[in-house]
Amino acid sequence: MNYRMIWYIMGQIFKVEAAFMAISLAVSLIYGENLLVAFGVTIFALITIGVLLTLKKPEKHNFYAKEGFVVVGISWFVLSLFGALPFFISEEVPSFVDAFFETASGFTTTGASVISDVEALSHGLLFWRSFTHWIGGMGVLVFVLALFPEQETQSIYLLKAESPGPKVGKIVSKLRITARILYGIYIAMTIIEFIMLVCGGMDVFDSIVNSFATAGTGGFSVRNGGIADYNSAYSEYVISAFMILFGVNFNVFYLILIGKVKDAVKSEELRVYLGIVFASVVAISAVNMINNVEGFATVGESFRYSLFQVASVISTTGFSTVDFAAWPTFSQTLLVVLMFFGACAGSTGGGTKIVRSIIMLKSGYAELKHCISPNSVISVKFEGKPVENDVIRSTNGYFVAYFSVLALSTLIVSFDGLDFTSTFTGVLACLNNIGPALSELGPTHNFGGLSVLSKLVLSFDMIAGRLELFPVLLLLSPRTYRR
Amino acid sequence: MNYRMIWYIMGQIFKVEAAFMAISLAVSLIYGENLLVAFGVTIFALITIGVLLTLKKPEKHNFYAKEGFVVVGISWFVLSLFGALPFFISEEVPSFVDAFFETASGFTTTGASVISDVEALSHGLLFWRSFTHWIGGMGVLVFVLALFPEQETQSIYLLKAESPGPKVGKIVSKLRITARILYGIYIAMTIIEFIMLVCGGMDVFDSIVNSFATAGTGGFSVRNGGIADYNSAYSEYVISAFMILFGVNFNVFYLILIGKVKDAVKSEELRVYLGIVFASVVAISAVNMINNVEGFATVGESFRYSLFQVASVISTTGFSTVDFAAWPTFSQTLLVVLMFFGACAGSTGGGTKIVRSIIMLKSGYAELKHCISPNSVISVKFEGKPVENDVIRSTNGYFVAYFSVLALSTLIVSFDGLDFTSTFTGVLACLNNIGPALSELGPTHNFGGLSVLSKLVLSFDMIAGRLELFPVLLLLSPRTYRR
Repeated sequence: MNYRMIWYIMGQIFKVEAAFMAISLAVSLIYGENLLVAFGVTIFALITIGVLLTLKKPEKHNFYAKEGFVVVGISWFVLSLFGALPFFISEEVPSFVDAFFETASGFTTTGASVISDVEALSHGLLFWRSFTHWIGGMGVLVFVLALFPEQETQSIYLLKAESPGPKVGKIVSKLRITARILYGIYIAMTIIEFIMLVCGGMDVFDSIVNSFATAGTGGFSVRNGGIADYNSAYSEYVISAFMILFGVNFNVFYLILIGKVKDAVKSEELRVYLGIVFASVVAISAVNMINNVEGFATVGESFRYSLFQVASVISTTGFSTVDFAAWPTFSQTLLVVLMFFGACAGSTGGGTKIVRSIIMLKSGYAELKHCISPNSVISVKFEGKPVENDVIRSTNGYFVAYFSVLALSTLIVSFDGLDFTSTFTGVLACLNNIGPALSELGPTHNFGGLSVLSKLVLSFDMIAGRLELFPVLLLLSPRTYRR
Repeated sequence: MNYRMIWYIMGQIFKVEAAFMAISLAVSLIYGENLLVAFGVTIFALITIGVLLTLKKPEKHNFYAKEGFVVVGISWFVLSLFGALPFFISEEVPSFVDAFFETASGFTTTGASVISDVEALSHGLLFWRSFTHWIGGMGVLVFVLALFPEQETQSIYLLKAESPGPKVGKIVSKLRITARILYGIYIAMTIIEFIMLVCGGMDVFDSIVNSFATAGTGGFSVRNGGIADYNSAYSEYVISAFMILFGVNFNVFYLILIGKVKDAVKSEELRVYLGIVFASVVAISAVNMINNVEGFATVGESFRYSLFQVASVISTTGFSTVDFAAWPTFSQTLLVVLMFFGACAGSTGGGTKIVRSIIMLKSGYAELKHCISPNSVISVKFEGKPVENDVIRSTNGYFVAYFSVLALSTLIVSFDGLDFTSTFTGVLACLNNIGPALSELGPTHNFGGLSVLSKLVLSFDMIAGRLELFPVLLLLSPRTYRR
């Protein structure tokens, strides 16, 4: 393994984190808050380590899949560790484990929080907290790729390890250009959402942080009452629309930008995604209205609340405007199913990604057809093209890893003695980067009451989920470090 | 499709069901119960249809996988429909849907019950109810194969469709002999358990029906208080031991019988199975003792109750001696994980089978290794031999079908408004042929309060689960009936 190259790239990541943190420090200065030490010490440490690690360019350029996974796996843990320092040093989050959980939850765009009184935090830290969503949404390595000129061979493995979905979505042949296009679209859409929220009367700071949280499909709120606190149907519709949009594969937006609208709307994953959203909104509205759920008196209200919640869960954002843990069992169960699916590959959303479910369902159906006619060759097609065996096998491997981590984590967290629903959906919500779960970990509660062990396991799950398991699991395998 | 052959085989199945029912009628006569009409009408109908269908031997002998799946799929539904008639005609179970649910639960060896006062049933029907467990445990088609001389080509497809596990376990080259050996071992072990229970002081009738329920890994009890009612540590240990034994691949017993003990204990699946049992007993004992759960005061008591419950759940029997729905969340969660695993392939147990989990975990791990060294060829091995790609693919297809049915059924049953834990584990318990679930469908409750829709869905799940999904799913596909 090329350790020198790994340290070198990590050095660049440290510098990038320092730069992002400097922006947060600036925000705190604007508000006249005393966070100079908390941010300053961390930034100084990041820059020092970053500079030391990048002093000498590595001579050997061999860099393969293994190195890519290891860099990405380690750096997300380290980013969260350093990102937690300002919370801890400022004593606004007195426990380091809590600060680490909150930061990992931020970077991984989960949005599960251990803080019960969010409004007590300073603006600088609230900004940093939501900013981690935005940084983690598109990916830190992707950002590094966009900035630093690297060899194509290194980049492809970094992108493979950090990008969501079973295949790397190269937009153009050059990866650095691809990374820049992705960030360009990302920044533009974030700005549009910000402007739309400000136009609706939301104050500037809240519009910024809520746009960050939407764009990264994160879900941290800066109000104790969440998005419901703004009491604005307009803001809810804007956020609903953007949650859905940020759950779409960014390739679709690129195709639209270059005028290939027809190709864009042909995307099978997009159609299934929007179909699931539509069907779920209708089903939840109907069931909640029939069951006289509070707030679901009229069709208009029902549409507003169910659209917001469906968009929030399937995009894995995790905002909430109502206490869905009080909904009828059917509606809650449907949300759990949506939690599992997640958004589209190549979006900022988490979860198992819709494309994986499509591929698995199709390969399952092919197997069924194979039973009827054992001698015929039946291939699995996606978006009109046959899916290579490699992709089916790795999708399969992903799900095996997914269910293993899910089962083991649920067992460990169950020591805390919450009820089974809370325990299971809590792990599901962290592993799929959603945030709030059901029952005792529902939207009106938070993760603060869990044990240190559970918080560490769930932090691990959030990072494992965001990186789609393999980079993090490889870190645990001794095989990785063998020559 | 060779419909004539399908009808012919079904005719034989009808006759076999009539014969089994005649035994139950005899039992009711011994107890002087008036079940002549209830059993008589049903037996008459079964024989009439059976004779009509087998009047003429079909000329065409073409019989392939498709026909095998269809015969098995249809016949399990039809068996349950006719098997329900005595309950309904006698008015001891006044609702036909309830009678159907109870019979499907019997044949599939699930043991989920809709009857709250079991002790009010007549001996004849109690016998029939437990007898369905015994019949369904080894399989009706396997029984037909053992009795009637058929061509090998037909038999292999019937065995493939009905036998549990990803591969058919032929013991000897001739299938009819294989079927006879299997039934021989099955009968012998049932008799040994019966004798041991009688020797412990259990009355003859109860010993018979409890042996049926253990042998088929069914779980119906003839006492309202379940096995705890006998208040006998001896009986509980005997039943625990036999539950574990009936969850073992019968090939292992055959190997022991012919003196190949070394080969028998080498079985990888057996070792994993016993390892899981051991680890689970230790973990549950420890956690329940620490949490001061009632009945877990001493190590002896803890061992007794946790062994019984672990054996019951992993073998998918579903007996209970304690209300495990009141255990700490960890112990309950561990039971849910055991529910999912199920017993060994080639046993009378249900669930997804341990071999499938082993194959999936190994193929997932192979995929992880593939990430590190993309160019190396990594094969999956089971019991020392490489697993063919076909088996991995069909195991994969099985799990896709499994999770799809699980998710859809949970959604439908959630309309009943039970809490999420009850809904989810209730479906899991039916699909895996276990019986009792957690919370509102736990061992102190029953399935009687569910809606007709839920009962039908769960009946479907029990049959689908027992036949490992494909035969039942193929019945739903129009493709099956196409020329």
